[in-house]
Amino acid sequence: MDAIKIFAPATIANVSCGFDVLGLCLDAVGDEMIISKTAEKGVKISKIVGQNLPLETENNVAGVAVLALLEKYGEVDCGFDIEIYKKIKPGSGIGSSAASSAGAVYGVNKLLGEPFTLSELIPFAMEGERLASGNAHADNVAPALLGGFTLVRSYDPLDVIKLHSPSELYATVIHPKIEIKTADSRAVLKDTVSLKQTVTQLGNLGGLISGLYSEDYNLIGRSLQDVIVEPLRSVLIPNFDKVKEFAKEAGALGGSISGSGPSIFALSKGKETAEKVAIAMAKAYENLDIEFDTYVSKLNPEGNKIID
Amino acid sequence: MDAIKIFAPATIANVSCGFDVLGLCLDAVGDEMIISKTAEKGVKISKIVGQNLPLETENNVAGVAVLALLEKYGEVDCGFDIEIYKKIKPGSGIGSSAASSAGAVYGVNKLLGEPFTLSELIPFAMEGERLASGNAHADNVAPALLGGFTLVRSYDPLDVIKLHSPSELYATVIHPKIEIKTADSRAVLKDTVSLKQTVTQLGNLGGLISGLYSEDYNLIGRSLQDVIVEPLRSVLIPNFDKVKEFAKEAGALGGSISGSGPSIFALSKGKETAEKVAIAMAKAYENLDIEFDTYVSKLNPEGNKIID
Repeated sequence: MDAIKIFAPATIANVSCGFDVLGLCLDAVGDEMIISKTAEKGVKISKIVGQNLPLETENNVAGVAVLALLEKYGEVDCGFDIEIYKKIKPGSGIGSSAASSAGAVYGVNKLLGEPFTLSELIPFAMEGERLASGNAHADNVAPALLGGFTLVRSYDPLDVIKLHSPSELYATVIHPKIEIKTADSRAVLKDTVSLKQTVTQLGNLGGLISGLYSEDYNLIGRSLQDVIVEPLRSVLIPNFDKVKEFAKEAGALGGSISGSGPSIFALSKGKETAEKVAIAMAKAYENLDIEFDTYVSKLNPEGNKIID
Repeated sequence: MDAIKIFAPATIANVSCGFDVLGLCLDAVGDEMIISKTAEKGVKISKIVGQNLPLETENNVAGVAVLALLEKYGEVDCGFDIEIYKKIKPGSGIGSSAASSAGAVYGVNKLLGEPFTLSELIPFAMEGERLASGNAHADNVAPALLGGFTLVRSYDPLDVIKLHSPSELYATVIHPKIEIKTADSRAVLKDTVSLKQTVTQLGNLGGLISGLYSEDYNLIGRSLQDVIVEPLRSVLIPNFDKVKEFAKEAGALGGSISGSGPSIFALSKGKETAEKVAIAMAKAYENLDIEFDTYVSKLNPEGNKIID
């Protein structure tokens, strides 16, 4: 195999009560990438379509992720060419940089004959996140690489768990086209939380994970409550409360901020409900002078995949 | 059925990273209770063997729990007599009061023809905890009534989930016979925790619950880490670190403080390892002038049970 075309999925990090630990993989939204072996050694980003992003390998998240992989792999008798067809908008909060870096290492690993497991690819993709945000987090690259729901149990050592995901779970995402500066989304967080809030969050995270394994959609819904981060960050997103309220009225199990925003997600049982939720979320934005996109996606159980 | 003899199990609350939310039920340690219908109405504690505890119904945890049940049930044409054979030592940290209150409502519910589900009995048993500690918590009565591992997702409304429990899981408990005053075990806690600690705790609780469902003993072991409460409370328990270290060296998956102490628990895969762990834990106490008991118990999947 000398070339590969892949679908590189969007992802939701900070899933409600699972701030900094819980992520999930989408299926209906993602980039496409074509990765080819080249006679000339080195890693080249030859084309980026759809967004204005750096082509220099060392300044591109996909580039640095692949360089990290090759650094670990050792001598290789070819080079790699990467074309990126961006469909996920950077800054939307659904893992745009993670899609590129996870997709790139997935593709190069395939072309090398899969010397690394999917889990072993996570640290390489995290180097892309380090370039994008200054923080080598795994919240988005983990679900992009493993699919389904993932839990980052620990960073030291890195320990990422793929959780069981109920088959009828759908996500609806609304992306209001506003910019939230990373500095602002960090500044609103507090360094300390009350022990009481922590216990509440632990209860809900425990309930959510139990609900995922037992496929108890009602329990998943009851547990989708974030008492720590959502109250602080949601003020940066216009009509956040209204979107959530309308989504629930339309049948959503619950929802929260996707990543650090501005996108908002809701989870639903079944496609039909998820589509109604998309209409309800859009309704919450109809009187605002803000453009938005909505997406409906089933949970993607496998992450990156080869297409064509 | 006019009389019933039951086994009322000991329980472990505050299971490591699951402070205030996660409990489990033991099988090898527990009280016995005989509950009988009487012609005379009312609730009478006629006998308590093994401990010096109040016989007045309103001052006895089993008494007030049954009164709460009857208050909800309404008119009943008999009374109830309760005999308690205490084997769990009050103040040991393995749910002595919870065993009595949970056992009592379980037994009376049986004699009434089971008008309430096991989950519905939890709030009644919590009244016993309110009497015992001033706090109507469910951490011990929930696993005593439901068996296995339980998660208190929320108190408002009360929402208790029975989690899946791996069948080969055993607990080892060492009870050093010292008194930790409730006031002291509360005083060492801090009202606030760092966001970073909270995220670490969320990762571990998520990992632990995932490990329970997927029966991944290694993951359970990696996740048995409490960065919030154990470091503060463990200073009240002599040789705590040594007990934990010896337990792990003997093959335990991990462990922590049982309830608010002074008992220390460890979880292991298989009875043989759990028994080695008991010997190792005892060794950590051999040069201290403190009496102690050790228990080895498989996880009790059903909670209270009828005996004889």
